[in-house]
Amino acid sequence: MAAERVVIIGGGFAGINAAKALGNKKFDVWLVDKTNHHLFQPLLYQVASAALSPADIAVPIREILAPYDNITVIMGDVTEIDKKKRMIIFGNGDTLEYDYLIVAVGARHSYFGKPEWEKDAPGLKTLVDALKIRERILISFEKAERTDSISEARKFLNFVIIGGGPTGVEMAGAIAEIAYETLLKNFRRIDPKLTKIYLVEGSPHILPVYPPKLSKRAQKYLEYFGVKVITGKRVTNVTHDAVYIEGDCIEARNIIWAAGNQAASVLKTLDVPLDRQGRVMVGHDLTIPDHPEVFVIGDAACSMDPKNIPYPGLAPVAVQQGRYVAELLIKGFVHKEKRPRFKYFDKGTMATIGKTKAIGTFGKVQFYGFFAWLAWCFVHILYLIGFRNRLIVLMQWLFAYYTSERGARLVNRSIEEELVKPKHH
Amino acid sequence: MAAERVVIIGGGFAGINAAKALGNKKFDVWLVDKTNHHLFQPLLYQVASAALSPADIAVPIREILAPYDNITVIMGDVTEIDKKKRMIIFGNGDTLEYDYLIVAVGARHSYFGKPEWEKDAPGLKTLVDALKIRERILISFEKAERTDSISEARKFLNFVIIGGGPTGVEMAGAIAEIAYETLLKNFRRIDPKLTKIYLVEGSPHILPVYPPKLSKRAQKYLEYFGVKVITGKRVTNVTHDAVYIEGDCIEARNIIWAAGNQAASVLKTLDVPLDRQGRVMVGHDLTIPDHPEVFVIGDAACSMDPKNIPYPGLAPVAVQQGRYVAELLIKGFVHKEKRPRFKYFDKGTMATIGKTKAIGTFGKVQFYGFFAWLAWCFVHILYLIGFRNRLIVLMQWLFAYYTSERGARLVNRSIEEELVKPKHH
Repeated sequence: MAAERVVIIGGGFAGINAAKALGNKKFDVWLVDKTNHHLFQPLLYQVASAALSPADIAVPIREILAPYDNITVIMGDVTEIDKKKRMIIFGNGDTLEYDYLIVAVGARHSYFGKPEWEKDAPGLKTLVDALKIRERILISFEKAERTDSISEARKFLNFVIIGGGPTGVEMAGAIAEIAYETLLKNFRRIDPKLTKIYLVEGSPHILPVYPPKLSKRAQKYLEYFGVKVITGKRVTNVTHDAVYIEGDCIEARNIIWAAGNQAASVLKTLDVPLDRQGRVMVGHDLTIPDHPEVFVIGDAACSMDPKNIPYPGLAPVAVQQGRYVAELLIKGFVHKEKRPRFKYFDKGTMATIGKTKAIGTFGKVQFYGFFAWLAWCFVHILYLIGFRNRLIVLMQWLFAYYTSERGARLVNRSIEEELVKPKHH
Repeated sequence: MAAERVVIIGGGFAGINAAKALGNKKFDVWLVDKTNHHLFQPLLYQVASAALSPADIAVPIREILAPYDNITVIMGDVTEIDKKKRMIIFGNGDTLEYDYLIVAVGARHSYFGKPEWEKDAPGLKTLVDALKIRERILISFEKAERTDSISEARKFLNFVIIGGGPTGVEMAGAIAEIAYETLLKNFRRIDPKLTKIYLVEGSPHILPVYPPKLSKRAQKYLEYFGVKVITGKRVTNVTHDAVYIEGDCIEARNIIWAAGNQAASVLKTLDVPLDRQGRVMVGHDLTIPDHPEVFVIGDAACSMDPKNIPYPGLAPVAVQQGRYVAELLIKGFVHKEKRPRFKYFDKGTMATIGKTKAIGTFGKVQFYGFFAWLAWCFVHILYLIGFRNRLIVLMQWLFAYYTSERGARLVNRSIEEELVKPKHH
């Protein structure tokens, strides 16, 4: 009898951990991803802020899974899932049949019904996103240096980050470091210290999932680094060179979106109930209704804890869900009527604000400051895949700590096309 | 009296060395470049072959020149030089006047009058070029793995490199390492060992500027690594999936151009005699006729040695030319009728073929093999700008030496658009 085929869509934290757990077991496993790499998303903001290179936080999926002979890795864009015929369909019409399907396709940004904001306020989910934002930040200082118009230069030196979750907070802190430390002696015609950085959050506190005490501490850190924090106000419009906030207007050529998530659109083809963010409402065993062979995990799923509160969209949740599904398959629970329920074990969370400043929780313990920052560095190095990546990231951080330089300040785009010829006053 | 203004166009080896030598001297120096970084071009093939990240071999120009208060760095695309008005003109119409001009704009590829070949056979001059080639190489193996058609897979596993100079030889050796070592256990449906790599050179020997003994040695090394070397034959046509070589045809989806140079087109606006490669025929002091204040250096210039043979387009020539022009300015020779002649001091050259194999000359001494390879590694690490870059490149090389892994195997492009839906036979 041929081995049953498990198809996994997505090589993020959820998918890659399901695959690894199924490695060298009696299944014919296929992992499909749009790109060829697994991305360590918690450090993506460091690529966007020119501290790390893309390759430092991304490892080829086939390299990670090379030790497992039963796993075939395929690069491809899945556009449809046919749950009746038990197969997935690729962009070019290719098909792949499965006995079990694990959908771990992740999320993109949501612009709250204003997709036209995306071009002016790019979000941060993939390496391509990160490189686009990096280029925008760096080229903005270049434009400010080149223009003869002081009012134009001001706009290029204004940064607005929309969304006060971990990504927004980390980006704001990183941009502050670039402007106020890294670039200090690099310009002759402008003073990077004139840079203004705004972080806008709709709810009353930044980092709203943290205890209020830590949220306030994080805000103090940001303000210490020079970031202006605006809370409790909604963004009403985004244009090419301004952000409108309930009447107020901030002129800026650098707008970064870190506000909302929208699960991948291929989930719609499953034809099952989705939540407001487009995530699949999964059962206690992470399957969809009437199809116990189809699992949805990671940011693509809305799964409930025993108190019926949705689990947060965090890497550790995705990792544990991937391993849980693999376990169900390996132990044969998939053939039984009653399956054990998925439960998330919370080891705590952390967010860094800038050099030597971070906050975190560990069970009921709350901590912040230099110790929290060291713990953050340690944990992130530890979870990075690959010995080489760990060592190189560690080295980059040590350099950055002592010199405030950033290792990946590269711009390849032409500056001319966007530079308005200044009028001589 | 205000300081005289020196404008340098180009931040490559020639431009950056002129600027550094003029640092903190009594000139108002402006350096203009299309990108924001100085590129260590001798290692660019390692970015194209996924061994290094772009940031490992590129440093922001303003970081290099930050210590010199008299130097302003401007990002911009110079489209015209007006030697009569003594000013340069940017793509958007901005202008910048000069007292002295140093043109160090480098070269692009030349397709010998067949520019239509470029899209199928990209060349390797910039980071963008290198990333494009890297993506092509990696995605080709992905396509071979995904397609169900054996004949299609074959085409994806054929590589043709056109041009047997140092870049072509180094690329061929690097692709052999990727196919026969790095990817070995990464695929399930194809065997990367079936990869075929062809290096095509029109003259009788590869590396024609080296002594014939070393050229033959290099060819033996390449053949040892599995590269098929074709010499003395001209490429007659390049298409989407084949290279035609005097009647013969090699089917391949991966074609890399490393054959010819063409100096940057802005040089035409100088309205002075150019050579066949579009380089400016400069005088013994590297100036253009009738304009002793305009210097052309590096790959943009055709400058003659005392025997009236053009100096080769090598990094050390560019470096020495940059320093020579700075010296003329600093010592006031520019105000004298008679200026000392530029002379290149040849410290020797080296080329690497693959792990542990290289060739080199040092005066009349010729050397090759493991010692030459160690010397190559040492010299390239030494000349890399920036302590951080040196250490990180060294680490990447040590890792690669022991594991045959490559640190930057990233693909971001979608695979669907180019994948022909296989017909089921």
